[in-house]
Amino acid sequence: VTEFSASRMSACKRYVPGEQNRGRSYIRLNTNESLYSPPQSVIEAAARAAATMNFYSDPEAVKLRQAIAQYLELKPEQICTTNGSDEVLDYIFAAFADKDRPLTFPDITYSFYDNLASLYDIPCNKIKLSKDLRIQPKEYLHLNSNIVIANPNAQTGLCISNDAIAEICDTNPEHVVIIDEAYAEFERISAVPLLARHANLIIVRTFSKSRFLAGARIGYAAAGEDLIRELETVRYARNPYNVNAVAIAAGSAALAEADYYMEYWSRINKTRESFKSELRALGYEVTDSKANFVLCRHLEKDSGEMLDMLKEKGFLVRKMSGRISEYLRISIGTEEDMNALLKYM
Amino acid sequence: VTEFSASRMSACKRYVPGEQNRGRSYIRLNTNESLYSPPQSVIEAAARAAATMNFYSDPEAVKLRQAIAQYLELKPEQICTTNGSDEVLDYIFAAFADKDRPLTFPDITYSFYDNLASLYDIPCNKIKLSKDLRIQPKEYLHLNSNIVIANPNAQTGLCISNDAIAEICDTNPEHVVIIDEAYAEFERISAVPLLARHANLIIVRTFSKSRFLAGARIGYAAAGEDLIRELETVRYARNPYNVNAVAIAAGSAALAEADYYMEYWSRINKTRESFKSELRALGYEVTDSKANFVLCRHLEKDSGEMLDMLKEKGFLVRKMSGRISEYLRISIGTEEDMNALLKYM
Repeated sequence: VTEFSASRMSACKRYVPGEQNRGRSYIRLNTNESLYSPPQSVIEAAARAAATMNFYSDPEAVKLRQAIAQYLELKPEQICTTNGSDEVLDYIFAAFADKDRPLTFPDITYSFYDNLASLYDIPCNKIKLSKDLRIQPKEYLHLNSNIVIANPNAQTGLCISNDAIAEICDTNPEHVVIIDEAYAEFERISAVPLLARHANLIIVRTFSKSRFLAGARIGYAAAGEDLIRELETVRYARNPYNVNAVAIAAGSAALAEADYYMEYWSRINKTRESFKSELRALGYEVTDSKANFVLCRHLEKDSGEMLDMLKEKGFLVRKMSGRISEYLRISIGTEEDMNALLKYM
Repeated sequence: VTEFSASRMSACKRYVPGEQNRGRSYIRLNTNESLYSPPQSVIEAAARAAATMNFYSDPEAVKLRQAIAQYLELKPEQICTTNGSDEVLDYIFAAFADKDRPLTFPDITYSFYDNLASLYDIPCNKIKLSKDLRIQPKEYLHLNSNIVIANPNAQTGLCISNDAIAEICDTNPEHVVIIDEAYAEFERISAVPLLARHANLIIVRTFSKSRFLAGARIGYAAAGEDLIRELETVRYARNPYNVNAVAIAAGSAALAEADYYMEYWSRINKTRESFKSELRALGYEVTDSKANFVLCRHLEKDSGEMLDMLKEKGFLVRKMSGRISEYLRISIGTEEDMNALLKYM
């Protein structure tokens, strides 16, 4: 905070990104990126778009929104596209939450929700996960609050059912329920079918994880047209050309490659399941993650020491903090990567 | 505004972007893009980066910030890079303005300032341009307010001097003075030398206009390290991976092509000056723009009718609104483009 700062800055919290691999070439299993490349057609579409960068990107991102709408069997007017899903979360919080419209989320989840809320003076109500790190949906009923739930949950990879989501929507009718599906596509999890019956539901997705496009920064919200119109108002007040030309091209091309992604999602899921089994055989507790990462701890091994040892061996993983500080979160790379890592676990 | 909306939404104003040329292929002279391509080396750097989009972009954008710092003879810690300069304006307003820290800007300037301010409940004090559409710097002294001035000014292309900027900084010592240099590089205008002596000065720039990279979405702020640290706090609260991998690569490559840009800036300036002369010979009033556009009106021609007629002929230009609704703003394209346009003016 400086002598020039606005009052909101005293509460503003920085998100801490995972370590980057500048210099030494690590195997990056710490930020849930894909170690598989996107399809060649996506790279080529991006390269073609790079040749027309003297023109502004389409502020309505028509091509990308149409492709997403077709994929989800929705209308383009039900889609708001953004520079990563962090940005659409920002727009949602700005549009629907304030000091009188609080936000509820699990105590262990994507830590970024807390950061964003800090900037807008939004009261946050954090509900503790159960001892086995599960969200108890019954605790989210009748809260008279906005709610954000990552499904699968960040850090744990554990899911709640669509029936539970529907009940949360129904019992908080004056607020929005945000389901962050950043990790949902690997196992074809989706609350999209609920949109037709729940006017207060907003689904958030990203191309970073399941489309292998973290560096392209593409996220979106899917919701009823009224809610999307409100997000578009924020977007036009804030950054009308928010998705760049290369991202629009890459994202559209990615959605035309269903078979490619289905194959790699199967492969990632298979690698994750066998990695979980191997870890359990080595004495680790492992959550039943449905995402492209696992969360694990070993009762006799210190997670901080493990982190340092694995880095020394060339692997970046993520050590958790707070209530789950004894856990490591490890992204699922290729089968080779995970077998190489297992030697040191 | 919906039944779910936060209170701030009732004041939220949408920016209206220039018309896009979907379908029919227009000559786009309405959004101050470049009709020249960036150098081949920039397109190639972008295409190479496209092949590694499965990894997150560097949240510190080290490569790009180092290139900008070297170009401006500053430290990387004095640079905050963003997804277009709209985003850095957003971060600046969030960091330094609130209901008790108002914002002052000219009544005719980049209309986006007003939109952003609406979202944060920032009182805006608009100072009228003089009759000849000039900023009168004396009117910006001792205001006890944050100030944002585009230099050259948006819409008019007219400039104020660095001495005037220095005096504005000195006489508003408790607030920040934002100089938006989106259009400054064509004529090598720069308030960067003032940074060493003015702790409350923030310079905003973009790669959209002078680097022919509107579609890549790259903007930045240059200021003292304390102010930049504050902007980084907002950035990490809001969108830590805000500049995508392709933009980082393209922006860094662009700054290595000084000769290319110098040559094209000379060409654009020459085209602008001869276009201004031709317009004056045709009876237009034309401001003495130093940017890559001209602002003009003809006392006997209706700007709305001109807009429609030019569109019919294949040219998109921008009709102004409000106090300057009789003016057209026309971006400078190639010499051929401007000669073709002159036939219909």
